[in-house]
Amino acid sequence: MNIIKLSPRQEQIIKLVKENEPITSEKLASKLNVTRAALRPDLAVLTMTNILEAKPKVGYIYSQKPSYSLVYDYIRNIKVQDIMSKPVVVDENTTVYDAIVHLFLNDVGTLFIENNGVLTGAVSRKDFLKIAMGGTDMHKVPVGIIMTRMPNIVFVEKEDNAYLAAHKIMEHEVDSLPVVEKSYNGAKEILRIVGKVSKTNITRLFVKMGENS
Amino acid sequence: MNIIKLSPRQEQIIKLVKENEPITSEKLASKLNVTRAALRPDLAVLTMTNILEAKPKVGYIYSQKPSYSLVYDYIRNIKVQDIMSKPVVVDENTTVYDAIVHLFLNDVGTLFIENNGVLTGAVSRKDFLKIAMGGTDMHKVPVGIIMTRMPNIVFVEKEDNAYLAAHKIMEHEVDSLPVVEKSYNGAKEILRIVGKVSKTNITRLFVKMGENS
Repeated sequence: MNIIKLSPRQEQIIKLVKENEPITSEKLASKLNVTRAALRPDLAVLTMTNILEAKPKVGYIYSQKPSYSLVYDYIRNIKVQDIMSKPVVVDENTTVYDAIVHLFLNDVGTLFIENNGVLTGAVSRKDFLKIAMGGTDMHKVPVGIIMTRMPNIVFVEKEDNAYLAAHKIMEHEVDSLPVVEKSYNGAKEILRIVGKVSKTNITRLFVKMGENS
Repeated sequence: MNIIKLSPRQEQIIKLVKENEPITSEKLASKLNVTRAALRPDLAVLTMTNILEAKPKVGYIYSQKPSYSLVYDYIRNIKVQDIMSKPVVVDENTTVYDAIVHLFLNDVGTLFIENNGVLTGAVSRKDFLKIAMGGTDMHKVPVGIIMTRMPNIVFVEKEDNAYLAAHKIMEHEVDSLPVVEKSYNGAKEILRIVGKVSKTNITRLFVKMGENS
């Protein structure tokens, strides 16, 4: 997958085709005062990039197909496992106060909650702020009481693409998603948390994509 | 700016050049059992995309130049004004309690603080949570006391590119940047807030880039 920058002559050819389509290579060559042979590489580039379409016995037309987007392709090839980071996880029985301490010490926006190693919920800064405003005794209440509980947690898996994760983050208006591994205990699905993807991971990825490397 | 997907033959040419560089078009043609003329369009594409380099009288070599990246180019062309959203702004004298109410009612992560229409600071959910934990009387203390104050606020301008905004967000470990307009009162620089760019805006942009449109 590579990129091409059009030359001034290629831009000129596109303009001529748009104005005169369908147009044969002979006519293009005469309008540009060059030989057909001289045009061949340019026309090859323009048809291979799907900018122009060559209709046999008719001539070149400007392609109506949206040109294949590398950006799209590039993004769809990035997987959750390429950008995920380590989740901060506490047990359901942790007090709200201790959970907030964990949040600050690890400098994260969301804590994930487990019970016996199984993902059961999540709590965000926003949830904690609400509780802190409400006058709850944070030293007594366990985080399991205030968390958002499964099945109301949106998650992704390692093999999902980063686009899907970003889409879920926006759609469900959350800051962070747990990355899970599924297993089964009989018919029961069990989720274990193996990572997280947050708006921070997406922003970091965006910066990486924009770097001149 | 358009994208090109290499054909199997082009991939094969690249492989041959890597293994045999420098290699002339005659040798390439004979290895591929085709005529030189038949190879011409492929070689045109490969040199125009900077994948191969044609050295006169030497042959083709695999280019050491990093190939020009559309992703990079695409990203660098997006401006802050294309992705910014409306900031939520309160006055310095607002109490911490009322400021938190504003935060929830507008469902944002950061409040920007003004004094007489001039940007003077910012407060995040994290700052508020710290205060809420600390037993401060939130109904009495004005937000101006707990905010991060200028000049410690990182900002961008509308014409800056989105990449710069994302880079500053990651570098300074903040969730949101104010977008400002500068004016001068004598020698004094005055900043007015006209927007904000957050990790949410970057994530939304990423989703848009990954959409099949």
